[in-house]
Amino acid sequence: MEFLTGVKEKEALEISELLETAETGLCVKVNGAVHTIRDMGTVAFVILRKREGLLQCVYEKGSINIKLKDMKEASTIEVEGILMENEKAPNHIEIQMKKVKILSMPGEDMMPLPVSKWKLNTSLEAKLNYRSISLRNLRERAKFRIQEGLTRAFRDFLYGEGFTEIHTPKIGAKGAEGGANIFKLEYFHRPAVLAQSPQFYKQMMVGVFDRVFETAPVFRAEKHNTKRHLNEYTSLDLEMGYIDGFEDVMAMETGYLQYAMKLLEKEYKKELQILDITLPEADQIPAVHFSEIKEKVSEKYGHRMRNPFDLEPEEEQLISRYAKEEWDSDFVFVTHYPSKKRPFYAMDDPEDTRYTLSFDLLFRGMEITTGGQRIHDYQMLMEKIAARGMETDGMEQYLNTFKHGMPPHGGLGIGLERLTMKLVGEDNVRETTLFPRDLSRLEP
Amino acid sequence: MEFLTGVKEKEALEISELLETAETGLCVKVNGAVHTIRDMGTVAFVILRKREGLLQCVYEKGSINIKLKDMKEASTIEVEGILMENEKAPNHIEIQMKKVKILSMPGEDMMPLPVSKWKLNTSLEAKLNYRSISLRNLRERAKFRIQEGLTRAFRDFLYGEGFTEIHTPKIGAKGAEGGANIFKLEYFHRPAVLAQSPQFYKQMMVGVFDRVFETAPVFRAEKHNTKRHLNEYTSLDLEMGYIDGFEDVMAMETGYLQYAMKLLEKEYKKELQILDITLPEADQIPAVHFSEIKEKVSEKYGHRMRNPFDLEPEEEQLISRYAKEEWDSDFVFVTHYPSKKRPFYAMDDPEDTRYTLSFDLLFRGMEITTGGQRIHDYQMLMEKIAARGMETDGMEQYLNTFKHGMPPHGGLGIGLERLTMKLVGEDNVRETTLFPRDLSRLEP
Repeated sequence: MEFLTGVKEKEALEISELLETAETGLCVKVNGAVHTIRDMGTVAFVILRKREGLLQCVYEKGSINIKLKDMKEASTIEVEGILMENEKAPNHIEIQMKKVKILSMPGEDMMPLPVSKWKLNTSLEAKLNYRSISLRNLRERAKFRIQEGLTRAFRDFLYGEGFTEIHTPKIGAKGAEGGANIFKLEYFHRPAVLAQSPQFYKQMMVGVFDRVFETAPVFRAEKHNTKRHLNEYTSLDLEMGYIDGFEDVMAMETGYLQYAMKLLEKEYKKELQILDITLPEADQIPAVHFSEIKEKVSEKYGHRMRNPFDLEPEEEQLISRYAKEEWDSDFVFVTHYPSKKRPFYAMDDPEDTRYTLSFDLLFRGMEITTGGQRIHDYQMLMEKIAARGMETDGMEQYLNTFKHGMPPHGGLGIGLERLTMKLVGEDNVRETTLFPRDLSRLEP
Repeated sequence: MEFLTGVKEKEALEISELLETAETGLCVKVNGAVHTIRDMGTVAFVILRKREGLLQCVYEKGSINIKLKDMKEASTIEVEGILMENEKAPNHIEIQMKKVKILSMPGEDMMPLPVSKWKLNTSLEAKLNYRSISLRNLRERAKFRIQEGLTRAFRDFLYGEGFTEIHTPKIGAKGAEGGANIFKLEYFHRPAVLAQSPQFYKQMMVGVFDRVFETAPVFRAEKHNTKRHLNEYTSLDLEMGYIDGFEDVMAMETGYLQYAMKLLEKEYKKELQILDITLPEADQIPAVHFSEIKEKVSEKYGHRMRNPFDLEPEEEQLISRYAKEEWDSDFVFVTHYPSKKRPFYAMDDPEDTRYTLSFDLLFRGMEITTGGQRIHDYQMLMEKIAARGMETDGMEQYLNTFKHGMPPHGGLGIGLERLTMKLVGEDNVRETTLFPRDLSRLEP
């Protein structure tokens, strides 16, 4: 037997360690995957792919223990060598190889995609079919590091604001939003559904923790096969009690976006550079009434408004264009969505009950968030349910929570993949989903 | 229209703000849910439940704007009053109420559970049936704050160790572990399953990010109805490349546990006190070979070993007892599990292929982690699959990853609810699951 005492420092160094603590001229040990090999005659450059980027290793023929052809693209190796400066190499350093140990070899020589190219000029279809290979491309990989930053910022910001993280079940007896877009399954001989959102649960937990959040998958059996729809996605959800109005929820999201941009700037600079991203400003985000912005957009761009109580995708784009031109903002809150278009739990605007105390956040032409104030009064909730002619089967526990007291509250849900997509400048949400699920794609 | 500029400071103060920044004798504003009211005659104590704990408010009859009976347990209120010291009150402070605003009233007077009691002496069944009410009890709630700390520590520790967070799909074409314990659903007229674990995906992503983790739900259609089984739980998963052996994975978990205990000590002190928890030491965790510990336990406790290649629940408890008595450790790694009991991707021990380079972590008598080194060589993987007579349908993308090179790697999965359960001293995993799913429970 032995004792484990925690993480031990490894001899093999990461790129940041080479840059910060190692001295040039010294012998170091590194490891990585062979990203590409450039044979120049007497020397060759063996470029290693490591989690922090690329590392150039210089192979001088005849001087080390293995032959150049013993290494292949996609083999993983451990290298001992001399750390040197080289202005032309990535991070301005390189390793003069002295000794190589092969850690693993690929089963095949041919790679299905040229991952070592700067841009993978491959169809989305091919990238998704070979997902574990295509993501080895540095630019493809960087998008998901940015995605990590967005999720991490969400949690860190909310911990600081007194939120508690919750884990709510994804298998349940009934969906929160109702409707047809629900995946059904059999749960030990009983009908069950996959959660479309953690809506009911996060509201129920506001009565316990005051402020809660969850970052988890949600499932929507929508039959849309568009660039903006996924059938499974990651939802960044929050719900907060003791609000003075739904403006508090928008303020919280604004605070999150400010925090996220700062975190990306600080911790994900490398990835921002790789993807050539200019981060949007989130200092002040305009919020404008649904009917007001529809009119403004219709006037300014000569758009014919078909239905004053609905928003078409084209209008979303025009609203974003308007916000950029008039207020120099990449983000815009559209407030007071029509009651008809919102679920039963949305609080109607007492000043005009055709609208709700709710909002969407648009980012560069696309809706990335839906949120608002919820009904917290039991009677009001029951009346709205009755007015809509809804059944309450399977909602007993949710409704029971209101019977036993709930503070005024509201919340929101952010589509992580959409937010990432718009931030990194992609135009298909599958580009910023590790393993997308859509009408035709269930693998890998 | 208006501009949102971020989170604004609220007039209503939280308990930590009252303790840190407010002065006694000053008028302050607070809000909260009425946890309980104690009517003493001329005065009454209105105890508010806030996210940071309880706050005592003193109601002097005849001196304020509302009647005592206008407030009920479970109503939410906003109070203006004078902040005073009182050694007998929670946190040694109280508010002399001057003005009250009712924010919301419960729809019913009677609470289904006495949540304001220190201990909710109620059956587990009743607690789960009224989940959104029972969790309002301070002790019930505190367990899930501890659970937050464990999840948060996992992520923060791993970010620091160079891991990337991933989000992998929960709906797929085939399960990672195979077998019968899979929930099936129809996915747009095609058969699909819910993920039993992110195993395949996290391995595939090691080839991209070197080190990855995920904290997400997993689904197991196991027909066990025991105190330790859930059909949906939160799995803390990690997978790391370039390991020298599976000891590196155990070292990483040891590092996590050390980090988690420190974080709990620092940020969740209040909850540790409420639950009267003594945190376990994780400075050094013993690791002992499967067959060695089985013999030791059999010898020391006179336990009759039935099968040298399997571990019974009773033996798990004896091993933990042994580790506590012999090495004063609440944790113990049992290494080299029999190959037969591990999935095909587990790396066999080259020194004795009846065993694998893998481990379980036991904590106070229960398995909370399974991990180990995985096969990274394509040929070796295909041979193991063939030897087991397995089909490779639906695993093409997983196998393809190995064909195109993978570093030596390993990983683990931690059951969050079990870890929480053992840490807070519960004996049923449902006690530390917000909304448990088991054979008979699909609601709330």
